[in-house]
Amino acid sequence: MPRFFIAGTNLLGGTAIIRGRDAEHVRVLRLKPGEDMIICDGQGTDYKCRLVSADKEQVEAEVIEVRPCPAEPSVKVTMLCALPKGDKTDYIIQKCVEAGAFEIGFFSSARCVAKPAEPERKVERWQRIAEEAAKQSGRGIIPQVSWVGDYTAALDTAVKKELGLFMYETGEREALNAVLEASREVKSIAFITGPEGGFEPFEADLARVCGLHVCSMGERILRCETAPVVALTAAMYATGNLA
Amino acid sequence: MPRFFIAGTNLLGGTAIIRGRDAEHVRVLRLKPGEDMIICDGQGTDYKCRLVSADKEQVEAEVIEVRPCPAEPSVKVTMLCALPKGDKTDYIIQKCVEAGAFEIGFFSSARCVAKPAEPERKVERWQRIAEEAAKQSGRGIIPQVSWVGDYTAALDTAVKKELGLFMYETGEREALNAVLEASREVKSIAFITGPEGGFEPFEADLARVCGLHVCSMGERILRCETAPVVALTAAMYATGNLA
Repeated sequence: MPRFFIAGTNLLGGTAIIRGRDAEHVRVLRLKPGEDMIICDGQGTDYKCRLVSADKEQVEAEVIEVRPCPAEPSVKVTMLCALPKGDKTDYIIQKCVEAGAFEIGFFSSARCVAKPAEPERKVERWQRIAEEAAKQSGRGIIPQVSWVGDYTAALDTAVKKELGLFMYETGEREALNAVLEASREVKSIAFITGPEGGFEPFEADLARVCGLHVCSMGERILRCETAPVVALTAAMYATGNLA
Repeated sequence: MPRFFIAGTNLLGGTAIIRGRDAEHVRVLRLKPGEDMIICDGQGTDYKCRLVSADKEQVEAEVIEVRPCPAEPSVKVTMLCALPKGDKTDYIIQKCVEAGAFEIGFFSSARCVAKPAEPERKVERWQRIAEEAAKQSGRGIIPQVSWVGDYTAALDTAVKKELGLFMYETGEREALNAVLEASREVKSIAFITGPEGGFEPFEADLARVCGLHVCSMGERILRCETAPVVALTAAMYATGNLA
């Protein structure tokens, strides 16, 4: 069934009214009155609709079923990633949206090589990548991508979640699976992952002091753009969202 | 401790002899006699060695400990991926090697867009990507990358493993976590993943007939280059190799 991802769809009394570019999209697919489609509102809800009429200006459809989008995980996972070099941000965004992230934030840490003067200006482009990936993968929301600021801001975001994990390559760490399996019922998780050169020991200490779980993902060294996807997938698996 | 990945290291009676380009690498790091390093043989074994002498021609080191490389997973996972377009092969290889794959094979399926006349010629380049990723991530082996052939050849490879999984986006499927959790003790797993356009229904039927588990990874549609990494990570998690 065709699926449209239309944030802010006008849904009045059981009727969906679509205008503009989105209406054009329905027309291009040559849907006929009586045919069904799913309109997702970008807030996690799917509206199964039956087409009533479609012209150049406006598409009208009857809402016949409303349900939570089945692609949305039961857990909201926030990925907090130290800003990597080059277009690795794009990769992290695309893959984490596909893999089920709720939101993605970048921050600056001690060993970040990339320190743009105005990272806020990149957010618009990052958000477009997230939107594209959300559409492609059939998500029910467009995960928000943001510039979080410095490491303390990332810590502050993480400690506000039910479960906060700091992924670290060395020293004393908990096993990721042990931590996740003890927390299968949590509704919000934050992962903090490092830049190309890893975290400074004081950054790991600070995470520990803040009550985050300093975790290992095994002895293989993951690239800074690979670690977020692997950690997120582990969380999806552990919480039954990969089935 | 510096780590060298030297396939075919000459290990005679407790002494490692390194020549050529690898010896040059040791010299560049300015290791001094008495300092320790790890030499991995590319077959899953780490040799902890103490440097005895290093000159332009040859490095000599005393083997002081031999142990299985701790980065190698306890399960051998074979990734069989339908050949994608463009440089997505490179991405699949790099990420799957980091995430712990034992070997990676590409094959041609019904909806493959990419059908090179001589895919065998690409194998050398693919293998170099695997070697680079193995070094970077501290693997104990260089996973082999191969051109498997057509879909039947991929099926034939998969059925020879203890557990064979066919990742499919639609229809009747088993949940990936249920299958993996029922098979935590297996020593070999094969995953078959599809091309950009997915598999034809007859290909899924054939996998079922061959006794493979036709599996779902949830309602999110993963790109053909993302699915292998997510499936592999799930297997690593389920078998305790992500801790």
